[in-house]
Amino acid sequence: MSTDASGTGGDRRESFWAWGWEDRLPTDEERRELKNRIEGMLGFPERPLLDLPTLEEVTLAPPRVEPPDECPCETTSEKRDRVTHTYGSAYRDLVRGFHGRFDDAPDVVAYPERESDVAAVLEWAAREQVAVVPYGGGTSVVGGVECGGAGYSGVCSLDMGRMDAVPEVDEHSRAARIEAGATGPEIQAQLADYGLQLRHYPQSYEFSTFGGWVATRAGGHFATRYTHIDDFIESVRAVTPAGTLETRRLPASGAGPDPNRFLLGSEGAFGVVTEGWARVQPRPPYRAKATVRFDDYWDAVAACREVVQARLTPANCRLLDSNEAMLNEVAFDGSSVLLLGFESTDSLPPIEADLDRAVEIAEDHGGRVSEGPTTEDRTADGSTGESAADGDDQEGDSGEWRDAFVEAPYMFNSLVSMGVLVDTFETAVTWDQFPALHEAIRDNVTDAMEGACGQGFLSCRFTHAYEDGPAPYYTLLAPADVGRELEQWRQIKAAASDTLMEYGATITHHHAVGRVHRDHYHEEAPDAYLDALRSMKRTLDPEGIMNPGALL
Amino acid sequence: MSTDASGTGGDRRESFWAWGWEDRLPTDEERRELKNRIEGMLGFPERPLLDLPTLEEVTLAPPRVEPPDECPCETTSEKRDRVTHTYGSAYRDLVRGFHGRFDDAPDVVAYPERESDVAAVLEWAAREQVAVVPYGGGTSVVGGVECGGAGYSGVCSLDMGRMDAVPEVDEHSRAARIEAGATGPEIQAQLADYGLQLRHYPQSYEFSTFGGWVATRAGGHFATRYTHIDDFIESVRAVTPAGTLETRRLPASGAGPDPNRFLLGSEGAFGVVTEGWARVQPRPPYRAKATVRFDDYWDAVAACREVVQARLTPANCRLLDSNEAMLNEVAFDGSSVLLLGFESTDSLPPIEADLDRAVEIAEDHGGRVSEGPTTEDRTADGSTGESAADGDDQEGDSGEWRDAFVEAPYMFNSLVSMGVLVDTFETAVTWDQFPALHEAIRDNVTDAMEGACGQGFLSCRFTHAYEDGPAPYYTLLAPADVGRELEQWRQIKAAASDTLMEYGATITHHHAVGRVHRDHYHEEAPDAYLDALRSMKRTLDPEGIMNPGALL
Repeated sequence: MSTDASGTGGDRRESFWAWGWEDRLPTDEERRELKNRIEGMLGFPERPLLDLPTLEEVTLAPPRVEPPDECPCETTSEKRDRVTHTYGSAYRDLVRGFHGRFDDAPDVVAYPERESDVAAVLEWAAREQVAVVPYGGGTSVVGGVECGGAGYSGVCSLDMGRMDAVPEVDEHSRAARIEAGATGPEIQAQLADYGLQLRHYPQSYEFSTFGGWVATRAGGHFATRYTHIDDFIESVRAVTPAGTLETRRLPASGAGPDPNRFLLGSEGAFGVVTEGWARVQPRPPYRAKATVRFDDYWDAVAACREVVQARLTPANCRLLDSNEAMLNEVAFDGSSVLLLGFESTDSLPPIEADLDRAVEIAEDHGGRVSEGPTTEDRTADGSTGESAADGDDQEGDSGEWRDAFVEAPYMFNSLVSMGVLVDTFETAVTWDQFPALHEAIRDNVTDAMEGACGQGFLSCRFTHAYEDGPAPYYTLLAPADVGRELEQWRQIKAAASDTLMEYGATITHHHAVGRVHRDHYHEEAPDAYLDALRSMKRTLDPEGIMNPGALL
Repeated sequence: MSTDASGTGGDRRESFWAWGWEDRLPTDEERRELKNRIEGMLGFPERPLLDLPTLEEVTLAPPRVEPPDECPCETTSEKRDRVTHTYGSAYRDLVRGFHGRFDDAPDVVAYPERESDVAAVLEWAAREQVAVVPYGGGTSVVGGVECGGAGYSGVCSLDMGRMDAVPEVDEHSRAARIEAGATGPEIQAQLADYGLQLRHYPQSYEFSTFGGWVATRAGGHFATRYTHIDDFIESVRAVTPAGTLETRRLPASGAGPDPNRFLLGSEGAFGVVTEGWARVQPRPPYRAKATVRFDDYWDAVAACREVVQARLTPANCRLLDSNEAMLNEVAFDGSSVLLLGFESTDSLPPIEADLDRAVEIAEDHGGRVSEGPTTEDRTADGSTGESAADGDDQEGDSGEWRDAFVEAPYMFNSLVSMGVLVDTFETAVTWDQFPALHEAIRDNVTDAMEGACGQGFLSCRFTHAYEDGPAPYYTLLAPADVGRELEQWRQIKAAASDTLMEYGATITHHHAVGRVHRDHYHEEAPDAYLDALRSMKRTLDPEGIMNPGALL
C-alpha cells in the first residue's frame, strides 16, 4: 500500500515541483483548455503556456554536511531526494519549483523506519548542529518544511513516510494506533480490515500524514463536530531531543493543561510526532443532502449561522459565495449556494429530520432548494469508502463541488505553468465580526491584486461553521508576470494577513503557522504565551535544532 | 445577586467548616434520620452524633504578613476570612474544619474588584515573597486552594468573588464575557436578560466560579458533547506575575498549540484567570427521557457503550450500578439503572427518535424500560431554568437521582459529624480497560476500607460517556474512628489512586490535580512534558509565588 514518499520508487513517482503524482501532470491539451476557461471566465489577459520544468535543469549547491555514518536508517544526499524535500505545496513553492529554484534544499534526507532511527538522527543532529525538519507528505502551504539552515551546519529533512503502519486497533474502544508517516489512503486501507475508518479528510488527504495532521492541527472536510484532528486524538507519542514522551490513552482527562494539545500544533518545533492513538468509527450507513441557492449572500450567511446555532450538526454546511460557485461550476447565475449534508450514526435513519429542519431554516432566509432533499442508504454497497472526500461523494451540485475540492491542488500545477497567481487563505472569526472582516478582505485583497497584477478574482466559501462563527476560506486568482510572481504574491498575501489581524480573526483555521504565518501568529498569540512556548522549546530542544524558524 | 464570598455579609453566610450555607447546616433531627439510614442500609456499627463546631473554638496562629497598605482593594487578616479561605470542600477539608484544625490558614485574604487589583496584589506578593492562592468558590476537592506557605513569608488568598459580572454579551455570536468570580447562579441570572444560558452544571454549580472552572477544567453534568468547560471557551484573560495575557475570541484556530488549552487546567500555577468569553445558548425547548433497568451490570455497560458509539449524544447517559442506585434511592432491587435523556436543539422535536434508538439498544442488551419514554415541551413555561441540574429537573427515577446529585455535598456535612468517612473519586479509561480497572478498584478500595475501617461501601456511576470510554465516578463510605479519619482516608485514597495509575486510567476526569493528586499526576503526565510546564512556570512566574504546591 505504501506510496514511496521519497518519490524514488514504487509504481508512481511524485513530481519534483508540482502537487501530486508525476503521471498526473497536466497535458498541453488540458492546460490549453484551462487557459481558455480562465481567460474567458475571469477576463484575464492572454496567458502564456510555459514549458514544464525538468529535474535535469535544476542545480543544487553541494550538501554542507555528510549523511551520518552511524544512522541505522537510510540517509541520502541524492539530488532528487533533496529537491523533493525542499518545499511544501503552496503556490510559492510550486512557483519556485517551476522555475527550478531550490536554493534551500536540505543537505541530507533521512528515512527512519522505526522510532529508534528518529532518536538516532536527532542525536547526530544535536551533536553536529544540524537543523532537523520533520517531513510528512510535504503538503504544507505555509513553509512548514522549508528551512535554509542559516546558523546551522546543515539541514536534515526527516521523512517519516516509511513509518506508515497501523500496528494496533482496539475495536472495543474504537481507537487505532497509527504511525506518523501513514497517509490518508494508507490509514484507510489498514483500517478497512476492521470495518473502521478515521474519517478525517483534509484536502491533502492523498499525501498528507497522520503525524503532519497532529503537528499542524489539520482540519478535515466535515463542516461541524468531527472537523479537527485535535478531537480525534487519544494519545500522542513524540521524540524530542530531551527524550521521548507519550501521553496516556484516555477518552478524557481533567489533569492539568492537556499534554495532547501541546503536541497538537507543535509543528516540529519541540520534537517529532512518531505515532498516536486516534478515535475511529464505522462508515455511517445513511446520508441525506440538499442544495439551497440564495440571491443574497447575507441571507445565506444568516441561514448558515442559524443552522449551526440550532445545534444541528451537518457533515456538510458549505456556503459558496457566487464567485466560488462559479469557479467550481456549481452555479453561474450569481447565486450563493449552501450545500447541506447529514450523516447518520449507526442504523438510525432520522437524519432526514435534521436535514428538513436545516432546509426549513434556509428557506426562511430566502433560500430555494435546487437539489434534494435526498437520502442515500449505503448499508448494502459494502464499500468502506475509499474516496478522499467520502462525506461528499454524491451527485449534482455538491458532487461538482466535491470533484473540484479534490482536483483543486492539481489545477494549481497548471495555473502556475500559465502565469496565473493562485492562492488560498482561511480563517475563523465570530459571527458578529464576519461582515466587517469579509468586506475588508474583499476591499483590501482586491486592491492588492489590482495593485500587484492589474486585476484579480476573489471567492469565498465556508469550510467549517461553528455556533460562534464561520471559518471562511478565500481563493484568489490574478494574472501574474512570469518571474515576478513571488513579489506580487507577497503584496497580496500581506494585505490578506494584515486584514485578518486587524479584524480580530485568526491567521489560520487549519493551514498552520510554519514560516509564512509566523510574524502574524506572533501578533495573534499573547506575548507572555509565546515566551512560555519558547521556554518549553529550550527545555525540550536545548540545541534549538527542531524545525528552526517554524512557529517560533 | 452577589453572594458574599467572604462569608461575612449578605443575607446568608457560608459555613466556616461545612459545604454551603450556614442556614443549611443539618438539624439534629436530620442527622439522626441519616444516621439510622446509614446504619440500616449499609450495616455500619452505631455511629456517634457529634456536636457541630463553632468558630469561637477555632484558634489561628497570628498572620505572618500584614495586609499590604498599597493595595487598592480590601485586604484583611480577620479570623473568619482566614478560616473560610483555608480549605476547599473535600471530605478531608470538612473533617479538619469539623475538628477546628485550620493550621494552614492564609495570612491575608484579598478581595480584588477589578483586574488592576489582581495585578497590584501579585506585584506586592512577588516583592514580599508571599504565596498567592487564587480562590473562586472554595469548592476544590483536591487541595487546590490549600497552601501552608512553607518557604514563603506568608500566604495570600486571592478571593475573586467580587469580580462576578457578565459585562458583555454577543447575542449574534452567542458568546458572553464572564468575570472569573461569577458563580453558576450569578452567570445564569445575568444571562437570563438575553434569553441565554451557559448550561454548564458541575455539582458545585451553586458556589464554584467561572475562573475556577477554567483553571480546573471543570466537567458539567451533561453526559456527552457539552460536558467540559474546555469546549465552551472562546478566549481567556489572565494576569501572571510576568504580565497580562489574553487570547483572541475565535470560534476555532489552527495556529500553534492552543493558548486557551494551556490556561485550561493551569490551576493558578502560572497566573490568575480574570475573565473569559464563553459560548452560550438558549434553553433547549424539548427534552425526552427514559430509565432502563438491567439485572446484569455488564449488560448495562455494553448498552451504554453502544449508545455513545452509535454517536447518539444524550444529555444524560448515567449508568448507576446497583449500589449507586440504592444509595440514591433510585432502585433497591439490585438493578443497575441507565438514565437516558436527550435535549432538542431549537424548535426541532425529533429527539424522540434518538431516545427511541438509545432505548432499543438498551433493550437489545437485556434492559427493561422502567420509566418513559416521555417528552417534555418547555416552550410554554417561560422558565430560563434556574436549577443547578437543569438537564435533569424531571420526575421519577431520574428526578430522584437529580435530587441526590444536588444534595450530595450537603449530606457530606452530616456524615462528617457522625464519623462516616465519605469520599468520591472519578476517572476516565478506554472501554477495553474498564472491566479490569473496575474489578481492581472494587477489590483494592474495598480491601483498603476493610483494612482501615473494618468495612466499607463502594458504588459507581458513569458521569460521562465517550465513544472510546466511560468516566466512572466512585463513591465510598466507611465507618471512621473519630480523630483518625484522615489517616484512614489516606490509606483508602492511596489504594484508589494507585489502582487508577496501574490500569492506565487518569487520576482525574474533572476534579483537577491540586495537591492531593499531584504525585499521581506526575506519574500520569510524561516527564518531558512536566519539565516543559515547569519551564513555562519559571517564565510566567519567576518568583514562584503562584499557588505553590498545586499541579507542579
